[in-house]
Amino acid sequence: MTIRLADAPFPDHSSETGFSQNRLERRSEKRNASSTRNALKDDRAHLYLLSEGRVLLKHDEEIFDPLFSPGEVYDLDVDFDESVLLGFEADETPVLAAWTGIDKEHLPHHIKAIDLRSVYTQGLVPPDKLGAIAQGAALVSWNRSHRFCARCGTASEITDGGYKRICPNCQTMHFPRTDPVVIMLALTPDGSSCLLGRGAHFQEGMYSCLAGFVEPGETIENAVRRETEEEAGIRIGKVAYYASQPWPFPHTLMIGCHAVAETTDIRLDEELEDCRWFSRADVRLMLEQEHPDGLWTPPYGAIATHLIRAWAEEGE
Amino acid sequence: MTIRLADAPFPDHSSETGFSQNRLERRSEKRNASSTRNALKDDRAHLYLLSEGRVLLKHDEEIFDPLFSPGEVYDLDVDFDESVLLGFEADETPVLAAWTGIDKEHLPHHIKAIDLRSVYTQGLVPPDKLGAIAQGAALVSWNRSHRFCARCGTASEITDGGYKRICPNCQTMHFPRTDPVVIMLALTPDGSSCLLGRGAHFQEGMYSCLAGFVEPGETIENAVRRETEEEAGIRIGKVAYYASQPWPFPHTLMIGCHAVAETTDIRLDEELEDCRWFSRADVRLMLEQEHPDGLWTPPYGAIATHLIRAWAEEGE
Repeated sequence: MTIRLADAPFPDHSSETGFSQNRLERRSEKRNASSTRNALKDDRAHLYLLSEGRVLLKHDEEIFDPLFSPGEVYDLDVDFDESVLLGFEADETPVLAAWTGIDKEHLPHHIKAIDLRSVYTQGLVPPDKLGAIAQGAALVSWNRSHRFCARCGTASEITDGGYKRICPNCQTMHFPRTDPVVIMLALTPDGSSCLLGRGAHFQEGMYSCLAGFVEPGETIENAVRRETEEEAGIRIGKVAYYASQPWPFPHTLMIGCHAVAETTDIRLDEELEDCRWFSRADVRLMLEQEHPDGLWTPPYGAIATHLIRAWAEEGE
Repeated sequence: MTIRLADAPFPDHSSETGFSQNRLERRSEKRNASSTRNALKDDRAHLYLLSEGRVLLKHDEEIFDPLFSPGEVYDLDVDFDESVLLGFEADETPVLAAWTGIDKEHLPHHIKAIDLRSVYTQGLVPPDKLGAIAQGAALVSWNRSHRFCARCGTASEITDGGYKRICPNCQTMHFPRTDPVVIMLALTPDGSSCLLGRGAHFQEGMYSCLAGFVEPGETIENAVRRETEEEAGIRIGKVAYYASQPWPFPHTLMIGCHAVAETTDIRLDEELEDCRWFSRADVRLMLEQEHPDGLWTPPYGAIATHLIRAWAEEGE
């Protein structure tokens, strides 16, 4: 029995992660040179506004609204020429995203620039808008950091709703990049303990799954093996895919796996400040932020927490 | 039961695909500005030589050898300054890859430039070298097409064994790109038929899985759903990951899934020339190249064939 469809979860585990839900219809095959212009002409068009690692939210008491009409952004220094078309609501409303250059100290009092992490950890916007925000953040970030042709150095031109840039000199077409990263929870062969580590830049007490970029010419499973070996000196055997998550820092696809460790002696790489085996009892306390040593796991929504929770709750 | 480790295949299905096996130790954490230079100074160093979509093979009767010593490539117009360090053999031999500008008509008679597809479909080199060739092809291709800083347009400089380029003007660091693509075999809810399509550029009679790039801000499962809906008008429910494959055309990560179709009426997108439901009996004949209408599936090694075969053989 090699196909796992019969017992595949539905909704899938990916849909439980932050930034994964998105109700926009992308219509990727219909994009063309006039997509963005036509969308902006539509009276119903709305935009997400992004700046470095932040999204703008209108707020009124406890309600936060991330969608702006073009009229509302008149004095917010919005770069319409480089705006991107995310897709369409069910009622055909076009939804776009654009960069705003405005300093957050100069924003009108009813608009806040909130960092993307807080938006998802604090649940400031509905989950189905987080996916559109991740899509917009990734796409706007890519366009801003890829204004020049990487092949010849000429300034390139945005087209196809921001999903393509063309070089007017050498005609090379450039497409948005999405960087695959593996993130994995390694377990002892008896399944009783899991491997968590922390980087020096982590918040105090937080431990998470190991992770790293999939390299050129590498399968997902082999990336899991290489990264775990390089970072912790642990050899991995079996690998099982669990879920994926769009991660807009700046344009990553997190690929979450569980894995079986074939060794247990940790050899710490300098990339990590610490790495340890944790028992299921410890991890359950960490998930609830009730660990006696003040240890904890990443916030709800992070794919790491879903990988950890799926294992911790399995024995219940 | 949400974790699939207990019954995860080992070796994993990814290892059955072409370009997936690679015995080099990458030592990604040890790369630095002198990695390539030091490797080239090592007497034991060997190189793969790549040109547009091709790899050079020395051949002697029926034996093909893709590894060259630096002394063997003296007059082959090799770009050593932009060579990349793939990793190390178990005996510490450094293995590199480099671009050759030599016209294939001017190659010595014992060297052939063979296209990457033929190398893997015809099994011209051992499987464990195909992964290194894919790694080299992806990395050399990326470096060649990214000679300029995408942020400011200045010529960038290669470093860290070809795994990084730095802009001397704005100091932006650029890393190799790996483009995640979903490739999926959709099945009718009763599991009796699968959805295969063909593009106009396919060889006559060949049908394969649908596929498409994962977009910014999208999970793997939602990319499977969107692409199947856009290309064939079929709505997808459950999705199950099966295997992944490095695909050096030019630097792609194929993510293979099975999926349950919730509708069966095909609405063909212009991207496809044809798309149909095939029975298990039909597909078994196609896999063996014995279909009465001359229909067939992609060659062994392609992840599409592994997705198709896993389903076709399930009922046996």
